Amino acid sequence: MHAIEKILAKAAGKDEVHAGEIVNCRIDFAEINDLYLQTIYSFYEMGGEKVWDKDKVAFVFDHYSPAPTINSAQIHKEMRQFAKEQGFAHHFDINTGVCHQVLAESGIVWPGMILVATDSHTTTHGAFGAFGTGIGATDMATVLISGELWFRVPEVIKIEINGQLQEGVYAKDVILHIIGKLKADAAVYKAIEFCGNYIENLDVADRMTICNMAVEMGAKTAYMKPNDKVFEYLSTRMNEEFVIEETDLDYDYSETYVFDVSKLSPQLAVPHSVDNVYSIENVDKVKINQAFIGSCTGGRIEDIEAAFKILNGKKIHPDTRLIIIPASTEVFQHAMKLGYIQSLVKAGATFASPGCGPCLGVHEGLLTEGEVCISATNRNFPGRMGSTGAKIYLASPACVAASALEGKITDPRELLKEAKENA
Amino acid sequence: MHAIEKILAKAAGKDEVHAGEIVNCRIDFAEINDLYLQTIYSFYEMGGEKVWDKDKVAFVFDHYSPAPTINSAQIHKEMRQFAKEQGFAHHFDINTGVCHQVLAESGIVWPGMILVATDSHTTTHGAFGAFGTGIGATDMATVLISGELWFRVPEVIKIEINGQLQEGVYAKDVILHIIGKLKADAAVYKAIEFCGNYIENLDVADRMTICNMAVEMGAKTAYMKPNDKVFEYLSTRMNEEFVIEETDLDYDYSETYVFDVSKLSPQLAVPHSVDNVYSIENVDKVKINQAFIGSCTGGRIEDIEAAFKILNGKKIHPDTRLIIIPASTEVFQHAMKLGYIQSLVKAGATFASPGCGPCLGVHEGLLTEGEVCISATNRNFPGRMGSTGAKIYLASPACVAASALEGKITDPRELLKEAKENA
Repeated sequence: MHAIEKILAKAAGKDEVHAGEIVNCRIDFAEINDLYLQTIYSFYEMGGEKVWDKDKVAFVFDHYSPAPTINSAQIHKEMRQFAKEQGFAHHFDINTGVCHQVLAESGIVWPGMILVATDSHTTTHGAFGAFGTGIGATDMATVLISGELWFRVPEVIKIEINGQLQEGVYAKDVILHIIGKLKADAAVYKAIEFCGNYIENLDVADRMTICNMAVEMGAKTAYMKPNDKVFEYLSTRMNEEFVIEETDLDYDYSETYVFDVSKLSPQLAVPHSVDNVYSIENVDKVKINQAFIGSCTGGRIEDIEAAFKILNGKKIHPDTRLIIIPASTEVFQHAMKLGYIQSLVKAGATFASPGCGPCLGVHEGLLTEGEVCISATNRNFPGRMGSTGAKIYLASPACVAASALEGKITDPRELLKEAKENA
Repeated sequence: MHAIEKILAKAAGKDEVHAGEIVNCRIDFAEINDLYLQTIYSFYEMGGEKVWDKDKVAFVFDHYSPAPTINSAQIHKEMRQFAKEQGFAHHFDINTGVCHQVLAESGIVWPGMILVATDSHTTTHGAFGAFGTGIGATDMATVLISGELWFRVPEVIKIEINGQLQEGVYAKDVILHIIGKLKADAAVYKAIEFCGNYIENLDVADRMTICNMAVEMGAKTAYMKPNDKVFEYLSTRMNEEFVIEETDLDYDYSETYVFDVSKLSPQLAVPHSVDNVYSIENVDKVKINQAFIGSCTGGRIEDIEAAFKILNGKKIHPDTRLIIIPASTEVFQHAMKLGYIQSLVKAGATFASPGCGPCLGVHEGLLTEGEVCISATNRNFPGRMGSTGAKIYLASPACVAASALEGKITDPRELLKEAKENA
C-alpha cells in the first residue's frame, strides 16, 4: 500500500484499502472558511444539532477579511455565533490569516491526519504528510454531524524531483514547471506524491507551496514524506502523537514522472491558464500594472524575504503598484521583526492585513479591463482577480518583486546578482 | 478683517473683503480623491484640455485603496492616466494614505494658502492656518481649468477653548463636546476659528482632529492661528514662504462661545448623529462588536500611541474585533519604529493599509445588521460603515482601545491609571 492508503485504511478502521475502493473515514480536523456559510445552513437542514467534536472544527475568516461588504460582515456574524454556540476550541477571526497557513502554525496539522476544508488548496497539508483535501458545503455538513466522510481511494502519481535550484529559482518555479509539463488535468481525483532528492531536504514553506498547487493539476490530495524540517516545525507547535506511514516497496504508482530542476529558469504561467507555462527567457517582457505577493501559495516569510532581497534600498517602478499581504499574523510579525515590511514599504509596497487579499478577486487590489498583474498566487483564469479583461501572470515572489521594480516582467536572477555585488 | 478674510482678499487681489461678499480667489492647491473621477469628465465636458498648473493639482487614492471592486480599479486607472498625461508633479497612489494626512506630510499645506479638495473634511487644514474647504466635481473642474473659484466670504464663529485636559481625555473629546453643545447645523456656511489657551499650545495632530470635525457643524472652513508646533512641523516639510495674517482687534465675530475643558470627561457621539453627545458617565456600557481606530480624524501616530498605552501587553476581548488603519504610510512606518504595531497586533488588532478604511462604508471592516461599533472617526449616521441596522459610537482612540479591551464601552481613564500603576 501507499502511505496515503495506510492513512485512509487506519481512518476507515481497515487493514487494507486500495485505489478505486470507497472507504468511510474518521476525520481528524474540519476547517470552514468564510466563503462557506452555507455549511451551517446545510448542517441544520440535515438535522444537525451539535457538531461531532467541538475540538476538531474551526472557522477561518480569510477570504473576506476584513469584511469588504455588508453581506460578508453578515457571514462573519452568523459564523461567529455558531462557533460560540457550539463551543469551538479554535476560532480564527479577521486577525489571523489564510486558513492553510494558520492551521499549520497553530499545530492543528500533523503527519498521517485527515484534514478536510472548504477550500481547494487544502492539498497544502501534504507538506506535513497529512491527507488534506477540499470539500464542498454538503460534504462538510456531513462531517460536522458525523465526523466521517467517504472517499474513493485515489491512485497515486509519483513525481520525483531531483537536483539543486539555481539562485533566483524557487519552489514556485518547480511546481509551475511541472504543471506546465503535465497539464491542469493530469491528476484528476488522483493523489500526487512528491519525492526525490530536491524534496528530501526542502523546507516547510517550499513544501507547502508545491503541495498547495497540486490541486491545479486536479489532485485530490498531495503527499510528501515528512522530513527533519517538518519535525522541527511541528516540535514547537503540537503535542499530537503521530506515526509516519511508509509506502510499501512494491506499491504500484499509476504514473511516475522524473524532473531534474538543476537547470530550471524562473517559470511563468502566462494568461489565461495555470498550465500555460514558459521559462522567463521565452516570455515577452510586458509592462505590468500590479504585482502581488501573498496568499496560501506565496505569502510566507520566505516569500517576503525574497522580495526584500530584491527591493531593499530601491523603489518600485512609478507605473507599478506592489501589494504584499502576509499569509498570517505570525508572518506579519516575523516580517516586521526582520525589518522586511519597513524596507518594502519604503520601496513603495502596499501592505494589507493577513488573508487571501485580491487572489480570488474579492477585494484589496482588484484589476480592471486591460490591466496586467504578475502574482505569486495560484490561479490566472480570466476574472480571477477582478475584470475578465485583465491578464495575470503567475510567478515566484522574487520574480514578482523584480517585475515591480522594473515595471515589466523581469528575471530576478540578474537583480539578485546585482544586489549581491553591491552588498 | 478676520485672518480668513485677509487670506481671501489676498487671493482675490483685493484690499478688503467682508462677510457675505462673493469673491473670486486664486487657488493654491487642488486635491481630488478617488471618489471623484467625475471631476475629469466634467473637466473635459467644460472644454478643459490642460490643467491650469500641473504643480498645484494632485490625486489621492484613499477611499478605495487598495481597489475593492473592478469599478474602483477602473477609477484608479483613469485617474492615473489623467495624472500622467497632465504631468502632475504630485501623485498619491494606493501606497500613501488619507488625503488630508498625506498633503500635510508632503509639505503641500502652508499657512495662508487656499486649498480645495473633493472631500468635506478639508477643513482639517485650518490646523495650519490654511483656508481649506471641500468642493464638488463641477466646482473642482472649474478650478482645474481656471485655477480660480468663487466663495461667499463666511461669517466667523469664535470658539475659545481654555483649560488643560485630564489624562485620558483628548482633542477628540473636546470637539465632540463642542459639536454636542452647538449642534450639527451651528456653522452652516460659516467659518470657525478655534482659539483660547488650550489651542495655543496644542500639537499638530490634535489641531488637525479638531479642525477636521468642524465640518460636522457645517463649517465652510476652520481656522487656528499657527503656533510653534505648526512651524516646527512645517520646517522640515515645505519651502513655500508664508505670511501669518492677524485678525484685526475690532473684528466682529458672528458668534462667540467659550469652553472650559479642564473637567471634561471622555465624550461619545451616540447613534445616530454626530451631535448626540454624552459624557461617558451617562452612556450605557453596551457590548461592542467592532472597534476602529483610523481615518483623517483618528489615524495619526498620537492616536495609535493612545491605543498602545492601553493595550500593550494585553489582549482585546474575544467577542470584539479591533481594526487599526494608519492614516498614512508615514504613520505606519513611525508606528512600526516605535513598536506600536507589533504590540497592538499581539493584542489582537487587525491592521489594514493606510487609507480611509471602513470609515465611509466602502471596505475593510463593514458592519452588518445589529452590530455595534465604537470608532475614532467622524460620522455615525445610519449606514455610514455598512448596514443601516448597525450602530456607531464616536469616541477618542483611547476610548475605542479601552472598549476593545473590555468588549463594551469603557472609560479609558481607569485603564490608563492601571497601566501607570503597573509600569
